[in-house]
Amino acid sequence: MAAEIVNHRSESGTEGASEPFDPAFALHRGGKMAITATVPLRDKDDLSLAYTPGVAKVCTAIAEQPDLVNDYTWKSQVVAVVTDGTAVLGLGDIGPEASLPVMEGKAILFKQFGGVDAVPIALATTDVDEIVETVVRLAPSFGGVNLEDISAPRCFEIERKLQERLDIPVFHDDQHGTAIVSLAALRNAAKLTGRTLGDLRAVISGAGAAGVAITKFLLSAGIGDIAVADRRGVVSRDRDDLTEVKREIAELTNKAGLSGSLESAMAGADVFIGVSGGTVSEEAVAAMAPNAFVFAMANPNPEVHPDVAHKYAAVVATGRSDYPNQINNVLAFPGLFAGALQVRASRITEGMKIAAADAIAGVVGDDLAADCVIPSPFDERVAPAVAAAVAAAARAEGVARR
Amino acid sequence: MAAEIVNHRSESGTEGASEPFDPAFALHRGGKMAITATVPLRDKDDLSLAYTPGVAKVCTAIAEQPDLVNDYTWKSQVVAVVTDGTAVLGLGDIGPEASLPVMEGKAILFKQFGGVDAVPIALATTDVDEIVETVVRLAPSFGGVNLEDISAPRCFEIERKLQERLDIPVFHDDQHGTAIVSLAALRNAAKLTGRTLGDLRAVISGAGAAGVAITKFLLSAGIGDIAVADRRGVVSRDRDDLTEVKREIAELTNKAGLSGSLESAMAGADVFIGVSGGTVSEEAVAAMAPNAFVFAMANPNPEVHPDVAHKYAAVVATGRSDYPNQINNVLAFPGLFAGALQVRASRITEGMKIAAADAIAGVVGDDLAADCVIPSPFDERVAPAVAAAVAAAARAEGVARR
Repeated sequence: MAAEIVNHRSESGTEGASEPFDPAFALHRGGKMAITATVPLRDKDDLSLAYTPGVAKVCTAIAEQPDLVNDYTWKSQVVAVVTDGTAVLGLGDIGPEASLPVMEGKAILFKQFGGVDAVPIALATTDVDEIVETVVRLAPSFGGVNLEDISAPRCFEIERKLQERLDIPVFHDDQHGTAIVSLAALRNAAKLTGRTLGDLRAVISGAGAAGVAITKFLLSAGIGDIAVADRRGVVSRDRDDLTEVKREIAELTNKAGLSGSLESAMAGADVFIGVSGGTVSEEAVAAMAPNAFVFAMANPNPEVHPDVAHKYAAVVATGRSDYPNQINNVLAFPGLFAGALQVRASRITEGMKIAAADAIAGVVGDDLAADCVIPSPFDERVAPAVAAAVAAAARAEGVARR
Repeated sequence: MAAEIVNHRSESGTEGASEPFDPAFALHRGGKMAITATVPLRDKDDLSLAYTPGVAKVCTAIAEQPDLVNDYTWKSQVVAVVTDGTAVLGLGDIGPEASLPVMEGKAILFKQFGGVDAVPIALATTDVDEIVETVVRLAPSFGGVNLEDISAPRCFEIERKLQERLDIPVFHDDQHGTAIVSLAALRNAAKLTGRTLGDLRAVISGAGAAGVAITKFLLSAGIGDIAVADRRGVVSRDRDDLTEVKREIAELTNKAGLSGSLESAMAGADVFIGVSGGTVSEEAVAAMAPNAFVFAMANPNPEVHPDVAHKYAAVVATGRSDYPNQINNVLAFPGLFAGALQVRASRITEGMKIAAADAIAGVVGDDLAADCVIPSPFDERVAPAVAAAVAAAARAEGVARR
């Protein structure tokens, strides 16, 4: 009908003068997403079903039996992608408006890869309790909450409080998405070299959201040992400069009792996982154990160049799309939420995340090789496999509601 | 790709057993709306523009020049449809979840008729200040706020506070949408009978959100006089049972100094506007002035049956789609927001609302007749005409930002 009225995409007038000559700007003009009606609205009969008076019967039914909201609205298939704009990509605290292109990108990845509708919600507050209260108030309209690009350590508290107060999945992707895909790659790398997770000692560079989540997740999956390093070196019990979260990490990790620099901890280690944005020297990689794995995930500049890492390591992975073995969260979150929403899970459990990682790893199958420990982000088998595994795990763990 | 994973619409399993046999339920299954990506996501080149690394340039540009958020995201074309579920249709306070089918309906009407994207936001709070704070925090993600089905008198305070704090349009449709379309019909009815608005004395049944807004709007448009009646009769200065809002109405209206019942006030009146859900007798309609107008908008049961009203009145309008002259808000809100968003108006002024009413009335043109004082909701000329008139009024009043 009048769909062209505010479609900025179709306009062409003033933008030529000011728009930077870059295909990313041209692509982003007018945004990257839209709403569509999935029911007809052609005439008064259509309107009398989709709107008044027909809609009143549906409202009344939900008022009498609240869980029908999941059957008769889009609630159970739509996720809020919530940020406060404090840790956007590698750009840091750029505020809610400037974070919106990333949130829109995330929303359309949810749809494209998982069939999940998603709405960008960038909040004009960075206060933990205000963010929690706001999301709790929004929750009636959404089937799940994907937290995104919220800085550590606030992200841990926000996620925990929301999980306590809501009965829908709440998932901070920067933490758990990266952790799930890392575990998937690690499982396959271990398989390729004839080892199990319990045989491996890992060093993680970075104690922010991703580093902490990967650490906890690999521990719950049964890895042998982990040493975590922040900018001041290995996180160990004898340090007196640790935040609460890092003190917890010090308790959980470092059975080997290491201290000192990141690079010294890498000597003899089986696995390096970089989520710091820092760098490690060629010497440090060379000093790792035989058949080591190097997951250098800083973007756009990996902690060590993949060509250098390949000289010493059995398996090399990065966050980049132009090298093999890309650790990309899009392998996890679309299928994870699709599976959780499908069975109306009340939360995302450790078991569901491990099931997701195993499903991602399993898609590789007979293609397993040093340059193929993880599927391509465009492998269409991934999201359905993850969704099915997550739904089954939710049922097994008693958090499914259908 | 995997768009079928959570598409409940394509599922068929358990619903047969419990679903009421009603086409409205079948139509509502799985909800009435979805997100779509408006950019390609087929391969890693697409992903590197729409997501990392390309998106970072767009984020950085917005961080440096904040109003670019309107050019490079969907913000300036998406409206939040916000409710607390306290006054849903004629159903009353049914809560946020049960209100969602109406909010989804509203959202898809925005799209279908105005080309405006809209997202249902049903809040888990009925506290005025909490609603205001929540919407203020959501505002970075939206180009406008449509308040919906919030009970009076809270709706007045919520709208006023939000308008004070936000620099995007905030519009309570139950108030102003109804008022705009009523004025449009009244203008044409007056024209048809050779009168001007200033010649008319109106009686309004109902002092809730719609009644108060219609009263104020018709006064600002220049109507001769209005008497407003609530359940206890005419709102007049000598009553001691008035709320703050009704005291203001008593000051603004009733030049004639009426008191007593609604029906007594109708004697000799030129216009009856019903937004109460009550009833008026045939005798009261018979006692109105010659060439009277009866707008009996209660839904589904008009205050007086249109067939009865026609025996005495020159023009009869209702809220129903099965009688001529349907006063339907969908004639106003899609084009109004489309026009306001098009010029990035900082608010909706009285002048923009009057321009919308005049544009709606103008579409009728040479078709003007007693059974055609207002266009059909499906007249495709309406939304573009309203959008253009509203955009021009916003520019004329200095609230347009482009």
